[in-house]
Amino acid sequence: MKKTTAGIALAMLFSPVLSFSQEKIDNEAIQKIKKEGLENSKVMDIAFHLTDVSGPRLTNSPGYMRAANYAKDEMKKWGLTNASIDPWGEFGKGWELEKSYVAMTAPYYKPLIAYPKAWCSGTGQLKNAEIFVIKAKDSTALANYKGKLAGKIIMTDRDDVYKQSFKADALRFSDATLDSMAVATAGKPVDAEEARKRREQMMNAARSQQRLSILIKNMAKEEGAVAILSVGNKNHDGTLFTQGGGSYKGSDPENFLDIMLGIEDYMSIVRLVNSGYPVKLDVDVKTAFQTKDLQGYNVIAEIPGTDPKLKNEIVMLGAHLDSWHTATGATDNAAGSAVMMEAVRIIKSLDLKPKRTIRIALWSGEEEGLLGSRGYVKKTFADPSNMQLLPAHEKLSAYYNIDNGTGKIRGIYLQGNEACRAIFTKWFEPFNDLGAKTVTINNTGGTDHQSFDAVGLPGFQFIQDPIEYNERTHHSNMDTYDHLIADDLKQMATIVASFVYNTAQREEKMPRKELPKAK
Amino acid sequence: MKKTTAGIALAMLFSPVLSFSQEKIDNEAIQKIKKEGLENSKVMDIAFHLTDVSGPRLTNSPGYMRAANYAKDEMKKWGLTNASIDPWGEFGKGWELEKSYVAMTAPYYKPLIAYPKAWCSGTGQLKNAEIFVIKAKDSTALANYKGKLAGKIIMTDRDDVYKQSFKADALRFSDATLDSMAVATAGKPVDAEEARKRREQMMNAARSQQRLSILIKNMAKEEGAVAILSVGNKNHDGTLFTQGGGSYKGSDPENFLDIMLGIEDYMSIVRLVNSGYPVKLDVDVKTAFQTKDLQGYNVIAEIPGTDPKLKNEIVMLGAHLDSWHTATGATDNAAGSAVMMEAVRIIKSLDLKPKRTIRIALWSGEEEGLLGSRGYVKKTFADPSNMQLLPAHEKLSAYYNIDNGTGKIRGIYLQGNEACRAIFTKWFEPFNDLGAKTVTINNTGGTDHQSFDAVGLPGFQFIQDPIEYNERTHHSNMDTYDHLIADDLKQMATIVASFVYNTAQREEKMPRKELPKAK
Repeated sequence: MKKTTAGIALAMLFSPVLSFSQEKIDNEAIQKIKKEGLENSKVMDIAFHLTDVSGPRLTNSPGYMRAANYAKDEMKKWGLTNASIDPWGEFGKGWELEKSYVAMTAPYYKPLIAYPKAWCSGTGQLKNAEIFVIKAKDSTALANYKGKLAGKIIMTDRDDVYKQSFKADALRFSDATLDSMAVATAGKPVDAEEARKRREQMMNAARSQQRLSILIKNMAKEEGAVAILSVGNKNHDGTLFTQGGGSYKGSDPENFLDIMLGIEDYMSIVRLVNSGYPVKLDVDVKTAFQTKDLQGYNVIAEIPGTDPKLKNEIVMLGAHLDSWHTATGATDNAAGSAVMMEAVRIIKSLDLKPKRTIRIALWSGEEEGLLGSRGYVKKTFADPSNMQLLPAHEKLSAYYNIDNGTGKIRGIYLQGNEACRAIFTKWFEPFNDLGAKTVTINNTGGTDHQSFDAVGLPGFQFIQDPIEYNERTHHSNMDTYDHLIADDLKQMATIVASFVYNTAQREEKMPRKELPKAK
Repeated sequence: MKKTTAGIALAMLFSPVLSFSQEKIDNEAIQKIKKEGLENSKVMDIAFHLTDVSGPRLTNSPGYMRAANYAKDEMKKWGLTNASIDPWGEFGKGWELEKSYVAMTAPYYKPLIAYPKAWCSGTGQLKNAEIFVIKAKDSTALANYKGKLAGKIIMTDRDDVYKQSFKADALRFSDATLDSMAVATAGKPVDAEEARKRREQMMNAARSQQRLSILIKNMAKEEGAVAILSVGNKNHDGTLFTQGGGSYKGSDPENFLDIMLGIEDYMSIVRLVNSGYPVKLDVDVKTAFQTKDLQGYNVIAEIPGTDPKLKNEIVMLGAHLDSWHTATGATDNAAGSAVMMEAVRIIKSLDLKPKRTIRIALWSGEEEGLLGSRGYVKKTFADPSNMQLLPAHEKLSAYYNIDNGTGKIRGIYLQGNEACRAIFTKWFEPFNDLGAKTVTINNTGGTDHQSFDAVGLPGFQFIQDPIEYNERTHHSNMDTYDHLIADDLKQMATIVASFVYNTAQREEKMPRKELPKAK
């Protein structure tokens, strides 16, 4: 099966001109999609339910399950079929915050903006404890602190300097930037060995620091410290970027309480302690672990195909539904999830009767390594470790993904699949007036289209205006509904609906790249 | 006395050319000041003690008194004389936060970034209460809510829309901006009647909204609500701007608890409630009022003059030491206070032996209406309400003020005193290489030099680079030590020390404007 499919893919790769010239668009349908998507949008209502109503959507947390059930039920209401909460394999524990109160009580009172990292245990009760600053640069120096951490709140000495920002938080791509993306040529295929070496070097550099952090955390836990405080250089102005505090595996113990602060509070406390002013904190953190069901779940739903010959073929669109825990993951990635749901709503509400089956997937476990989409691809299409292809592998035309925040679509990454350039260029034509036209050979990484790409299936991610994704919202406590831009989400849903519909109607499946080797 | 002084001022106003051509600088002293200020600065150590060590410096709060005592003691240590905590008149109650825990508990748990407004009372204990959104647009509609507020947390309906920022938080003045300030010409004297009318119009527009707010607050208090929640459009990204919640007069009752939220949390709660999802909050706020001593206090210290004929004349420099309460007032105005303290430290440490007496003043009550400097000016120089001049009025040469954040000095506002242009232009020459040269006829307002200007004394405020004063720090929870720029503060202290020294050595006192009329 492997060879046959690869042969088809190669044949398509080398006959692009023929299919490009035949590229047809159902202009009437596209205009209907545009009208429904721009003038009758439900995308902000969907986003409201995924964010404000559901809460943070850490994988396997109650918030995630609320959002997943809402999405499934809502799509059922719209008339989609096979809507389900679909297990993709074992993930691990859910987790949520039940209380977090962190304040400085000496030398004077100050409430702190503070977030426990995910999957950390709590304090059991309100504790008032003194700050202890560890200045060890290595494990030898750390040994001097042995026996001193009981009942203390631990910090490590730092000398971070806050730098005022003389560039805007929010950004839209300029024409020049988009033009340079459009004319980019395919780089050399990545040398796996070279990449491995570079990764190894980077990891070695980080490893000694990381090892020391783990040693400190273990020592703090063993000796009965209250908590450890963390900070990152991006944490300022009250915007805090916070992720996980350790393992979420079902069999692993709870992680020692690790609390993220902003640079302003962290450095103020360190300066005080280092200058001989004792600092005390109140800490009262309660956390809850969900351990009954360790399975991870995606949300799946379909608009069945109507063409007798093509309805067994599939077009997929998706976005990850899970988020980090200090906000409601509005731009990462309620935005993408709402846009994808709105795209299928548009197609369904217009009763467009697609030839191929359209399947939407809202993934979980993306933040922990694209786990939901990998699990789904593995059980449905192919296992990238051995490249044994399942029957559905030849039935998927393409997968479209959104996961770069609230910014409108400016184009698409070909992910090295040059054969799709002319197709997408044509498909963008009705949306050039909305700022979308750039087709780049470039890859983009870090999200779920890679799970498809990894088994040789055409998986695409759109180019989006960055807005304030990097500076303010991505994995931060400010990733909330109000940071969404309604007009941009409407544009996105309209374009995605159109691309998905075009893919469903197209005479042939989308061209594929050569099959990758087993890993 | 009044006429005589006015006569002198007028004579000086009309003979500027003579004194300009004679403008001499003690270049050797200036170079010493520059070296000490730039290479041996203590300004960040001073700033550390005023911010991190002292805490928030709300007027008459324990934090303010800690900072005032530190400043007085430190300046004594440096060898300044007459260092004192100097009462300027009745201010009112001190206030500080002793606990603040605010979190959403339903429909799911979320800690909120929240700050009680100053001079509000607490909750007595931890209270869990439901949110109640009032949608009244006027007092008639408000009457419908009567009897419904007991035990509730009150919000008013709003439709604020967060706008992403496509311009940088931080800014330095461009040459073009500075050039346009330099060539500005004096505007017509403000028509007092015209100004009064404009103010009246603006106030009328705000008044009905304000009246409604007060009605809501009174109703909430009477019916036994738990708290009211507020928001402002500038509150986003975790940066919250928070001021007072009502009267601080000794005879007035405590103000009903009014808690400031960010737009993200406020609007999320309003959306949930308005969509039928009940929202509950935990609120546990403890506040403490200081009522024993209602006097307000400035900090005063001197470097005595050494010239037998001139030592009874005075050069003043100052900055307000008080701040708002949600941070440590680093840019507003520990920066100015630290710079002024550093300026006198530089002069004292170099043993420059100024001819005139140099007097530093660190004001309180600035945030409530320039109260400390007004009280000081009234008891020392003149009462602006009747323009009865005290003997010291003719002894003051000039007052220099810093209160625009952490940005370095780019020039000075003449405050309409054209006769000083050539003097200051000359004095900036040794600092042109540090970016300071612009002398503008423009007025600038909102801070303590106005108290001097109001009684016809030369009071000046420097032009400073705005940095992120407007966007992030001014009256916000992010006004902290880390938002200071050390190099800028060093430059400021060096220039101020030089201006103060030049003023102390100058043959004549600084030219004055015509005396204003009694108000």
